This record gives sequence, structure tokens and C-alpha cells, in this order.
Amino acid sequence: MEFSLGDLAERFGGEVHGDGACMIHAVATLEQAGPGEITFLANPHYRGLLAGTNASAVILAPRFVGDCPTHALVTDNPYSVYARVAQLLYPSRRLVPGVHRSACVEASSVLKEGVSIGANAVIGAQVRVGRDVRIGPGCVVEDGVEIGAGSTLVANVTVCHGSRIGERALIHPGVVIGADGFGFARDREGWIKIPQLGCVIIGDDVEVGANTTIDRGALEDTVIEEGVKLDNQIQVAHNVRIGAHTAIAGCTGIAGSTRIGRRCAIGGGVGILGHLEIADDVQITARTLVTHSITASGSYSSGTPLEATAAWRKNHVRMKQLDDMAKRLSELERLVMAKMDEDEPQRTPDEQ
Amino acid sequence: MEFSLGDLAERFGGEVHGDGACMIHAVATLEQAGPGEITFLANPHYRGLLAGTNASAVILAPRFVGDCPTHALVTDNPYSVYARVAQLLYPSRRLVPGVHRSACVEASSVLKEGVSIGANAVIGAQVRVGRDVRIGPGCVVEDGVEIGAGSTLVANVTVCHGSRIGERALIHPGVVIGADGFGFARDREGWIKIPQLGCVIIGDDVEVGANTTIDRGALEDTVIEEGVKLDNQIQVAHNVRIGAHTAIAGCTGIAGSTRIGRRCAIGGGVGILGHLEIADDVQITARTLVTHSITASGSYSSGTPLEATAAWRKNHVRMKQLDDMAKRLSELERLVMAKMDEDEPQRTPDEQ
Amino acid sequence: MEFSLGDLAERFGGEVHGDGACMIHAVATLEQAGPGEITFLANPHYRGLLAGTNASAVILAPRFVGDCPTHALVTDNPYSVYARVAQLLYPSRRLVPGVHRSACVEASSVLKEGVSIGANAVIGAQVRVGRDVRIGPGCVVEDGVEIGAGSTLVANVTVCHGSRIGERALIHPGVVIGADGFGFARDREGWIKIPQLGCVIIGDDVEVGANTTIDRGALEDTVIEEGVKLDNQIQVAHNVRIGAHTAIAGCTGIAGSTRIGRRCAIGGGVGILGHLEIADDVQITARTLVTHSITASGSYSSGTPLEATAAWRKNHVRMKQLDDMAKRLSELERLVMAKMDEDEPQRTPDEQ
Repeated sequence: MEFSLGDLAERFGGEVHGDGACMIHAVATLEQAGPGEITFLANPHYRGLLAGTNASAVILAPRFVGDCPTHALVTDNPYSVYARVAQLLYPSRRLVPGVHRSACVEASSVLKEGVSIGANAVIGAQVRVGRDVRIGPGCVVEDGVEIGAGSTLVANVTVCHGSRIGERALIHPGVVIGADGFGFARDREGWIKIPQLGCVIIGDDVEVGANTTIDRGALEDTVIEEGVKLDNQIQVAHNVRIGAHTAIAGCTGIAGSTRIGRRCAIGGGVGILGHLEIADDVQITARTLVTHSITASGSYSSGTPLEATAAWRKNHVRMKQLDDMAKRLSELERLVMAKMDEDEPQRTPDEQ
Repeated sequence: MEFSLGDLAERFGGEVHGDGACMIHAVATLEQAGPGEITFLANPHYRGLLAGTNASAVILAPRFVGDCPTHALVTDNPYSVYARVAQLLYPSRRLVPGVHRSACVEASSVLKEGVSIGANAVIGAQVRVGRDVRIGPGCVVEDGVEIGAGSTLVANVTVCHGSRIGERALIHPGVVIGADGFGFARDREGWIKIPQLGCVIIGDDVEVGANTTIDRGALEDTVIEEGVKLDNQIQVAHNVRIGAHTAIAGCTGIAGSTRIGRRCAIGGGVGILGHLEIADDVQITARTLVTHSITASGSYSSGTPLEATAAWRKNHVRMKQLDDMAKRLSELERLVMAKMDEDEPQRTPDEQ
Repeated sequence: MEFSLGDLAERFGGEVHGDGACMIHAVATLEQAGPGEITFLANPHYRGLLAGTNASAVILAPRFVGDCPTHALVTDNPYSVYARVAQLLYPSRRLVPGVHRSACVEASSVLKEGVSIGANAVIGAQVRVGRDVRIGPGCVVEDGVEIGAGSTLVANVTVCHGSRIGERALIHPGVVIGADGFGFARDREGWIKIPQLGCVIIGDDVEVGANTTIDRGALEDTVIEEGVKLDNQIQVAHNVRIGAHTAIAGCTGIAGSTRIGRRCAIGGGVGILGHLEIADDVQITARTLVTHSITASGSYSSGTPLEATAAWRKNHVRMKQLDDMAKRLSELERLVMAKMDEDEPQRTPDEQ
């Protein structure tokens, strides 16, 4: 499969500098690309590699055209054009539709046209599987689940009863959707389980990274809106709602009933406490602990800087004295100011 | 299935205000409940929703009875009574006992009465499975494992050789019990593996959340005592012991050989270093790093507050100066105090 | 299986004190070991247990020989000698080679001699499996994967297409190797997926803990060099490279394109941002957030200390004032110094 640079420009936008007839069959990095390959410059840190590239063409922003040693596809959003070019050149593998002989599918479930069910996958009762869905090997889909057209469960994914997944979702291995939320009432005898009666609802075009877990709601549902992208090993507790097109990096945990707005970008290893509201268009940097609601868009952080351990040992223990230090500083300011005011009249004659 | 309010009061305690003959068939939230449904008020933050509820009955504390627009079940622990009502109305699905034709069970294993083994589950040799145990689809139970009566492994759970699970345990998808602990000796050639020869012992009434991992002991066992509740994505290292009825929220990690007391409540994303002792009845707030043993019950925390990123950038770098600031503050106090003492005699005549 | 103490000394080094003919058949802790068992003293904290041990022999350092109540194997690295003794006494279980009748193996795949494929495992097309490899129950190995001789995938492991695993690797349950990296371009329509076209390459003698995830590269590969040891629930993002013999404790997350050196020791719950370089022989303590490259070997840390929650509430909010406090402290120093300089000439005559 190959395409001319002009064809790519026509499909995805951008202006050709150089030869639009140049043929492209693969993508590669600035350093590794060779003849017939296209690369991109999206992060200005890598502009130094541009002059030396052997790629046939480069996708880049207008300001870098002058430095480009070969044909260029010039656009304001090179990374997004690159994404579309790569999707075109590397389409998802089409599977032969059908149910593998080792898969177990309950008779009451409905599989639409083009569905592929992998080896040793298990589909429970009354499951509805849309067109062209791929359920990979080892996946377990419990009773009453719905999966929209074009979605993929890669392998060893577990989807618990009653969950609903939209269209074109991509669910990576080890993901667990719809396990019980963590709900218990304390009692003299210990913890009494609160039955988790809600479901998980996942919108269209959602991607869920490997080993991420999304718990079912306690009474209402846990909701992941359309276009949300979740990285690996994220924990989404019961009754959370994540707004459309929000992206969350790996190892982040979101406690119960928190609602996150639309188009947020949340870094890796962030912790968000329960029952909070996060506004739309909020950025949260890696490893931040969110302890209260965020009502305005913008960027938020917490945490302390990296130091050599010996220096850190001295500094971090001072945290325990910080309130005391603040009070002593204020008292000292008071004393010094009082002293200066007091000295002032005495000095005034001499100073004048 | 429905029950009168009076019947619920008789089963679970509490006093009926209003009509004890009122019939209940479902639970719902204060906002969504309608006729025939019961709801509850446990968190005072939601008391504003009480007046507008359309529920047939509300489970609540005595002080809220006056505000309740409908029949009430009055109790000092509304959340726990709600839990029991919900358990009554939504019993766990009873499975038809039997071994799915696609499951693989070694001949030397013993399955007691009422056991259900799901599709494509794998049971090794010399496994002992108690009455009414449910081992869901895709689970792998290695040789020599014991699982007590009434326990459930939901789906895609892995239980490694020799692990023992008590009665009425609930193990969610993706959980791994009894993988090797992380033990290596350093050597000129690199890392030499320490064989992990202990097991994992899990008590009765334990719940383990999705994708949580509990490693086997190195020489002794890793022990989770009865009534412990673990949320999702928790890591429990080798030789850890968690005391009875302790609850731990998601994404927490516990390093090797640490012992946690009974009835502790540990927040999400907490990190607990190895070889520590945590007393009974300790609370640890979300994301705390526990670097030393905790010998007294009480609440413990660490971490820094959420800020706008621009403010955080200014503040958090000062952490590296904190020890220096503390010393300078002390020196300044010394200077100012010395100065004031010194000025004192000179001033005394004037001030008198 | 039993060995004389003299035989152990000959195999693994060390000097026998006492009776080299003493026979050993098992290992145990200092407290629990009895006749026929060998134990070890590696951590000086446990030296108090030495005098009371009932073990037949103890592996220990020269300085503890005087306190040892029984035969001893004396060496400078008791933990490493213990590791080798334990490996000898507790060899990995040898499995009967063969493909379980319930496993699915595509015809185009090649299994070398001695390979064992467990129940309900799934092996895709064109997979190459080396001698004596064990692929446990429920594992899914996608198309084009290569697994080197002597490696083990314990159970429910997922290895995505094209990944390469070296020899003698040990991959614990729930691990996902080669899922898509988290790469998206932002666009008016939301997030556009960047096809993840690289692979995962894992060297020889690597161990990967339960539920750890290692993503495939975007354009180049994600590389785990030989001898690396990864604990449970670690997230390794796309294009990361981890240098040989580095060990990483549980729950650590490493963002995309970061390169970690050789022989590093990284604690639990550490977060390492993307596009960084970590030098060889770096230690990072638990829960540190690494926000910039580390160019020199040594130990690094971040984080704040554990406190009673009430004290923490007072101290941690002061973080928001830290920059202000630092400025006020400097200003106060300036004022006090100026005042002292100013007073100096006036005082000089009196003081002389």
C-alpha cells in the first residue's frame, strides 16, 4: 500500500512543498526514516534532527519548512496529520469473522454480522454484540452486556454483567469493566457489603489501557463519556463520571462519585478523592493529589521536587515544623517592625 | 420479591415511623426512588434531598425523622441497615451447580456439593473446593489450592499453587493470589532469585478488588485475616499480614513483611514501606507514604496540597531550601533576641 | 533431596565452621528452622535470633560466627549463598512437556522440544517458542511472538503480536506485554489515535511481576534489557528502555520514551516522567516523583513525612505560603542586618 504525498495532502489537509508525486509507503522517526517513508516534526526539541533526515517527506509546521531537506507536508497540526497518515498506512488487522471453535457463546446472545470471537473467549447469556466487533482470546463477557459496532476487546478482558460499551471502543488486555464498587457499611460485626446495583456505561470511541479497572455503580451507573482515553492501570471507582474527550495517563486513581469534566488532561499517577467535581478543560500534572473540587479550568499540581536523598532527608523533615516556622516568622516580623518603629523617632533627628 | 417495611424493621432492627404495611421491592437513591422503593439518608450532606424524595420509605437516623415526607425506618446506623435491606432484595445470583463442558479440572481435585465451575476455567491437581463455591469463567486455580465454602472467584482470577482461601470470600476479576514475591540477592552476576516458598492464606469473609495482587511469602506465609476488604489494584507484597476487618482503598501498595493491625482504614494510593508494624485501629488518609511504624491508633497523613500549577512551581521548589530556611530563621531569632536584650538596659531609663 | 554442608560450601563458596557432614534438606527462618534445616543471617537486625536458632546450620558473615550455636557456612554474601542453596533444594517444578488438549495453537507456530502449553492457553500464528518454555493456563500469545528457551509464562499472561521475550524469563500472572502505548494527537474532533507500530523486546533472565504492563513502542521498540527485575503492578509506557540488571519495586510508573540506566534500584510507587534519562547505578527511594533527568549515580528522593493528621493539616497548608515565607525571611534578614550595621558605629565607642 502506498500513497503519493499529494494524495495524503488531499485526504488530510496541509500543503505540499516539493514533489507531490513522491510515493510514501511507511512511517518512521526523523532518524530512522529512509526512502519511501514519511516522518514528522511535532516537538520542537527534535528540530535538530530535521536537517539530517533521510525520509522522503516530513510532516511539519510552516516555520520549519526552511530547514527541511526533502519534500514536506506543511500543516498547523503535524502530529494530528501524522496520526491520520499512519492510520491510513497501517490499518487495523481485519479478522476473519466467526466464532472460534473453542469459544463458548450462550445461545441467547446475539452476534451481528462481521463479529469475530477468539479462542477460549466466553460470552454469557443475552449479550448483544454489534457489527464487526472483535472479542479476542480469553475474554469473558458476562450476561446482559452490550458492545457497540466496531469495538475491540483485545484479549483477556473481563466485562461484568450488564455493562454497556459504545461503538469503536478499544479495550486492551487485562481490563476489568463492571466489577463491584468498594462499598461497605461499618457495623459491630465488621463490614457489611453494599450490593453494587449500578452498571458501567462507556461511550463511543473510548480507549481503555491494559489492566485498567472501571467499577460498576452502587445505585446509579459509572459513566465514561464518548472519546475518553484511559491509559494503563487506572482505577475508576463506582459512580464516577468522566466527561467526553478527557484523557488520563497511567496509574491514576479516581475515588467514588467524583465527576470529571470534558476535555480534561490528567497526568500519570494522579489521585482524585471521592465526591469531587472537576471542571471542563482542567489539566492536572503527574502525581498530583486532588483533595477538593476544581471549579475553574487551568492547570493544577501538588507534590515536592526531586533531590539527592541526603538533602531531601534534611529538608523534608522540616515539613513537620512548617506551621511553627510560619508563626515564628510572623512573630519575628512583628518584633522587628515594632523595634524599627520605636527606633525611628530617635533616629530621625540624626538622619535628617 | 417484596417485603413490608415492618418486616424489614423486624429483620434488621430500627423503628417504623408511618405505615409498617407499606410494601418495598427495590432500593434507589433519594432523588430517583419512587413508589415501592426504599432509600436511605446516611451522609448529612444529602439531607437537602430528603424533603423532595418520592420513595415509599427512607432509612434514616432519629434526628432526620421530622424532615421525612414519607414512611421511615429509623435507626442509629442507616447505612448498615440499608446494606442489609439491599442484600435481602438483591440476593447474589444462584448458579446452577456443575462443571462447564469447556472447563478443565484435574481428576485429583475434590469439588464439594453445589460447586459451579465456569467456561474455560482451569483447576489443577489436588485442589479442594468447598460447598457452593463459584469459580467463574477463565479462572486458573493451580495445584493444591483450597477454597472455602461459599466463596466466589468472579472471572479471570489466578490463584497460584498452595494458596488457601477461606469461606464466603469474593475475589474479583483479574486478581492474582500467590505469585512469587519480589526477592533477589545481589551478586556480581546480577540478581539471584530467592525461591518464594511460602503461601498466601486468606481468611473468611474477605473481599479482594479487581486486579489486586497478593504475593506468596518467601519462607513464611502472606496472611490476610478474616473480614479484610481490599479494593482494586492493591499490591500486597510477600510476608505481609493484614489484621482482621481492615479495609484498604484502591491503588495502595504494601511492601514486604509489614504487619497491619485490625480494623484499620487505609485510604487510596497509600504506600507503606516494608518491615513496619501498623497498630490496630489506625486510619491513614489517601496517598500517604508510611515510612515508619505506627504504634498508636489514630489518623496519619502525608503529602502536599493542590495548587494552581504556577503557584505550585514557586512553592514546591522552596522545599529544597527548607532546612536552610529553618536555620536562617533560628539565627535571625537569635540575633533579634540578642539585640533586644542588649537594647533593653539602654532603653529602660527612657521607658520608665 | 539432601546435601551435606560441605557439599553446599563446595558448590556455592563459603567456609564450613563445624561439621561439614551435617545433612541439609530444607531452608527455614532463624526462628522456625529445626534439625536438617539451614537458615541464614543477612540482615543484622535479626542477629538477636541467632543464639536461639534450632537450625542444623546457618549461612552468615564472618563477624557473626562467634555467636552461632551450630554449624555455619561462612561467606561475605550470605543472602546470595542462601539464594543458591534454596534454588538447589527447591528446583522449579518440571512439567511434562506437551500441549494440553484444550489449548489452541495455530498450525504455523513452532514449538521446540520440551515445551509445555497449559490448559486453555491460546497461541496465535507464526509464534516461535523455544526449548523447555512453559506457557501456563489461560495465557494468550498473539501472532508473531518469540519466546526464548527456558522461559515461563505462569498463567493468564497476555503477550501481544510481535513481542520478543528472551531466555529464562519468568512472567507472572496477569502481565500484559505489548499492548498499545498511549499516543493521541489532539484535534478539533477530539483525540486521534497514533498507531503503535513498535514492539516490546525483553532480554534474557528478566522477571516481570503480576499485573505489570509493558506497552509496545510507537515507532521504535520498548526495550527491557537482560537481567531486569520488575515487581508487580508496574507500568512501563511506550518507547521506554530499562538498562540491564535494574530492579524496580511494585506500583512504579514510567512514562513514555524515558531511558533508565543499568543496575538502578528503584523503589515502590515511584513515578518517572517521560522523555527523561536516568544514569546507571541510580537509586530512587519509594514514592519519589522524578521530574527531570538524573545524570549522576547516587540516591534520589522526594516526598513529605508521615505525621498525625491533625499536625499534617496545619503544616501541609503552609506549603502554599512557602515562596512567600522565603521572601519574607530574606527581607527580614536584610532589615536586621541593615539595622545591625547601622547600630554598629553608635555602639562601638561604648563597647570598646
